[in-house]
Amino acid sequence: MKKLNTIILLLILNISFAQVQKIEPEFWWSGMKSTELQLLVYGKNISDLKPEISGDIQIKEVQKVENPNYLFVTIDTKGIQPGKVKLNFKKGKKITQSFDYEFKSRENNSADRKGFDSSDVFYLLMPDRFSNGKTRNDFPYDSSEGVDRNNPNGRHGGDIQGIINNLDYLNELGVTTIWSTPMFEDNEPVYSYHGYAQSDYYQIDPRYGTNEDYKRLANELHKREMKLVKDYVTNHWGSKHWIIKDLPSKDWIHYWENGENGFQRSNYRMTTQFDGNAAKIDAEGCMDGWFDTTMPDMNQKNPLVLNYMVQNAIWWIEYANLDGLRVDTYSYNDKEGIAEWTKRIMNEYPNFNIVGEIWMHDQAQMAYWQKDSKIGAIQGFNSHLPSVMDFTLHDAIGTIFKEEPSWDKGMIKVYENFTNDFLYPDIDNIMVFAENHDTSRFNEIYPNIEDYKLALSLIMTVRGIPQIYYGSEIGMKGDKSKGDGDIRRDFPGGWQGDKNNAFTESGRTTEQKAYFDFTKKLLNWRKGNSAIHKGKTLHYVPQENVYVYFRHDENQRVMIVLNNNQKAQKLDLKRFSEGIQNHKSGKDILSDKEFNLNNELEIKGKTALIIELK
Amino acid sequence: MKKLNTIILLLILNISFAQVQKIEPEFWWSGMKSTELQLLVYGKNISDLKPEISGDIQIKEVQKVENPNYLFVTIDTKGIQPGKVKLNFKKGKKITQSFDYEFKSRENNSADRKGFDSSDVFYLLMPDRFSNGKTRNDFPYDSSEGVDRNNPNGRHGGDIQGIINNLDYLNELGVTTIWSTPMFEDNEPVYSYHGYAQSDYYQIDPRYGTNEDYKRLANELHKREMKLVKDYVTNHWGSKHWIIKDLPSKDWIHYWENGENGFQRSNYRMTTQFDGNAAKIDAEGCMDGWFDTTMPDMNQKNPLVLNYMVQNAIWWIEYANLDGLRVDTYSYNDKEGIAEWTKRIMNEYPNFNIVGEIWMHDQAQMAYWQKDSKIGAIQGFNSHLPSVMDFTLHDAIGTIFKEEPSWDKGMIKVYENFTNDFLYPDIDNIMVFAENHDTSRFNEIYPNIEDYKLALSLIMTVRGIPQIYYGSEIGMKGDKSKGDGDIRRDFPGGWQGDKNNAFTESGRTTEQKAYFDFTKKLLNWRKGNSAIHKGKTLHYVPQENVYVYFRHDENQRVMIVLNNNQKAQKLDLKRFSEGIQNHKSGKDILSDKEFNLNNELEIKGKTALIIELK
Repeated sequence: MKKLNTIILLLILNISFAQVQKIEPEFWWSGMKSTELQLLVYGKNISDLKPEISGDIQIKEVQKVENPNYLFVTIDTKGIQPGKVKLNFKKGKKITQSFDYEFKSRENNSADRKGFDSSDVFYLLMPDRFSNGKTRNDFPYDSSEGVDRNNPNGRHGGDIQGIINNLDYLNELGVTTIWSTPMFEDNEPVYSYHGYAQSDYYQIDPRYGTNEDYKRLANELHKREMKLVKDYVTNHWGSKHWIIKDLPSKDWIHYWENGENGFQRSNYRMTTQFDGNAAKIDAEGCMDGWFDTTMPDMNQKNPLVLNYMVQNAIWWIEYANLDGLRVDTYSYNDKEGIAEWTKRIMNEYPNFNIVGEIWMHDQAQMAYWQKDSKIGAIQGFNSHLPSVMDFTLHDAIGTIFKEEPSWDKGMIKVYENFTNDFLYPDIDNIMVFAENHDTSRFNEIYPNIEDYKLALSLIMTVRGIPQIYYGSEIGMKGDKSKGDGDIRRDFPGGWQGDKNNAFTESGRTTEQKAYFDFTKKLLNWRKGNSAIHKGKTLHYVPQENVYVYFRHDENQRVMIVLNNNQKAQKLDLKRFSEGIQNHKSGKDILSDKEFNLNNELEIKGKTALIIELK
Repeated sequence: MKKLNTIILLLILNISFAQVQKIEPEFWWSGMKSTELQLLVYGKNISDLKPEISGDIQIKEVQKVENPNYLFVTIDTKGIQPGKVKLNFKKGKKITQSFDYEFKSRENNSADRKGFDSSDVFYLLMPDRFSNGKTRNDFPYDSSEGVDRNNPNGRHGGDIQGIINNLDYLNELGVTTIWSTPMFEDNEPVYSYHGYAQSDYYQIDPRYGTNEDYKRLANELHKREMKLVKDYVTNHWGSKHWIIKDLPSKDWIHYWENGENGFQRSNYRMTTQFDGNAAKIDAEGCMDGWFDTTMPDMNQKNPLVLNYMVQNAIWWIEYANLDGLRVDTYSYNDKEGIAEWTKRIMNEYPNFNIVGEIWMHDQAQMAYWQKDSKIGAIQGFNSHLPSVMDFTLHDAIGTIFKEEPSWDKGMIKVYENFTNDFLYPDIDNIMVFAENHDTSRFNEIYPNIEDYKLALSLIMTVRGIPQIYYGSEIGMKGDKSKGDGDIRRDFPGGWQGDKNNAFTESGRTTEQKAYFDFTKKLLNWRKGNSAIHKGKTLHYVPQENVYVYFRHDENQRVMIVLNNNQKAQKLDLKRFSEGIQNHKSGKDILSDKEFNLNNELEIKGKTALIIELK
């Protein structure tokens, strides 16, 4: 009897323990170009279960890992029709669990979706700091961080509904695309508002809303012919991610034996990605070091990790109908891994767009990372990444409006930035910006609206995809040296009871109105201008701190004059005849003033002209 | 009678005027790879004369130009034997002048001559400021500038004999190659000492000596297994050049109609060479503008100009047995023209070497100009230039020894310079230097010998061809902001009566001796070290302002530690195991001290160690 009891007990324990708790992705789609799907199956001690699938579907491979709580089941979805299939798990010959696994039908033209491009204007916002549309989700379901608006580094309660509530504001402003910082669940106990330490890649953070809310945001944008770009993080997950807390195998992350819980801070020296002289210890120290204590560094060399990330990104593109991805800390990833990740997504969506954060200060180094780079090709590398960010332009903008012009200071820095355009394989697919959520705010560095107007005129008329940062359009300031909280203040009007509501015309202060109206005018003008979107650039060496350039295509020719000199300047137009051609006059779209282009052009100090040639 | 008199008079005038005064090159060689030779024939109204050559030589083409004082006679020298041929000039059927034109026989292995390479150390000197070996040539044969040592911008009297007198000094110092600033005749009435406005490209300036003296200098160097590199200027000639004063056609130079005597100053914006956005007026303003008022900008698009320059360079290589060229203002030239010039010279001497002055501040831009550059290839450009100068390293050296180290300041700047090595197609063929004749002197910026030792240790152990500047090896100072004269002071001991003679051991001050002895030790050590000449580099991200790198090949492994911190540092050697490998100890070649490499290495503040691993 004792023996039998023991056997029964073991059986009960076995059955009760070996329960599949989670399958990811939760569902998939029929008709994907890549027909291989790898299911992550999770549950206590489930690794001995045998999966089987109904119908014609073939299980290609079942992989066990170190941790018995995981199974990786690779299936071939070729020819699969929309609908549900049975996914059974057997212990011996007995089916212990049975799931309906759904393959949804794809939306029309999903595969051919067109990503963002240089006809767009990006609006970067932080959802926690933009607008609190739903206060009942301010406190999460568990013990993780709730709202405390008095803490600059705490949660403030902004959410998806807040964004949706203000889409008309954004549409009126003239931006076409929202890039929101990450919205997946981030269950760090503190400092979780920025969302870069995500704890569940299949779940929108409940403080922002639900997955359905996120999808609704995309729909609402699409109704307005606007776009949604997801901020995606491949380099690291959050320390509270359920997989991180119960790793399939240690090599899912870069675990540093000498560090506390595997932590070693990255040395952040991204040059080690391509430097043929670099020591291995430094290269590993950069790419395998952790971006921060709460951000275990993911190992994309592990194919299971890479598959998970590829499928997850595709899942969101398909589920929420995304128009693009922005990839965080792109150049900290394992180089071959992230290239493979990018290639597989772009292979699934050939007209999609992905912009990577390559925060370097040298154009050759940034151009290295753009798809089909000739510089990358020196080392046989191709990232397959369509778009990179123009950080050197950002560097220049950070100083030019307040320094004394000289041989290499003032507007010449901007000119020089564009002299290296030929290094980039696709110059129109470069993101241009004066600031983002990691930098001091432009209006803090330069408190005068004249400088804002010059910078915005620049950003909106040069080649590439302009990106602005929430709140700057109403003059918001913020000093990085005071901490990230200061550059990520709440948008005024986003919270009930805010005395100042800059979302409405009547709520704006005089100063906010001046910033907003200028921005709105320029951004809305930009929408219809092919020469600005895709035209060629012709530029002139700045003289007296005045930068003159033309954007032109077969339809249109625009002359931009940026006078960064405090004094008015007279330009002898003969010098610009290659740009002006036979045009006799033009209209400045900012002032609506007509300009005769025969002899001389006078421009006031600290002023921009954007002249459409007639 | 009147009519007959007139005819006679005209005949006399015609005969007396139509005299060939000059043929260039004066002679040539048999057995050159390129068999085409273009003779410039000069004389008053000689353009109607008909040239003919004796023997089997074929005249391929006779070209007239705007100016009747020139004829360009292209001959085919294929199969020609050493010796003289008759070159006759006929008026109608009558031979009016007859010349013996000589084809000399080439020296053995002339075509295969090996140019300078990374086993060499360059010594850059200005002949006027180095040593006056012959006072009787201090005043020239004509009214051009004579010696005035009190004028920092005047001629000081240094000459070829002065250099020859001190070759043993240089040999002892350990340099292997002399790069002298230009020595062709420069007949500017003032400021002619620098020699960059040359008035006769087939004539050594008589204040330096004769062509034979120059050849003797090369011979004396070769006797000591040292090399001679000529500083060659293609971009501009001097305003007193006899051809400039009687232009064959206006398009030999870039003549600016609105400028005085065709002058318009270059805008010096060399980025216009490759910037696809650049306005034509800016590109022409750089490349076709004049480097200075006395330096008419040569038009290498004119094939006659280009041929003249190619042949002249080859003539000097062959005549004086040169080991290389340094080309001034290389990137100001017409791009295709200078590439063709370089290609033709390298085609004649495939193992030769030419280093171009590409004074830019961006590695991709400099790498663009090196032969077979992948960056140049983006635009289908190949300069054929074997060697360029590492100006970004120079930029870094200019600040690193006195700035507070930080994320991007201090030794990290040097490290970062080398992270882009992969951009260069031939990284060993890069000239590295801390200063030259156009920059402030290193010892002026950093008056402490400790900094000199650090910089020289760096320059002498990194990849590339190190170049030092005359006088720095004895601690000479000079401040560019005080004028070029200050950075081009006379070498002490180069003039009779100099109280301080740093050329001799007994003549050196204690300070001079300290600089000299260190330099001599390091340079002579460098000679035998293959890992330094051609080895690979392995380097580590600097910590605490200490830069550690290894140079290694199959024969040798050298560990360089540059402590730019004022304080002593202890290095945990585990970090450097990739570099140290299984070596247990090594000897610092500077202090001759042995180091145990098992655990920790201690290095004093502001100190260099160059440890040969055992």
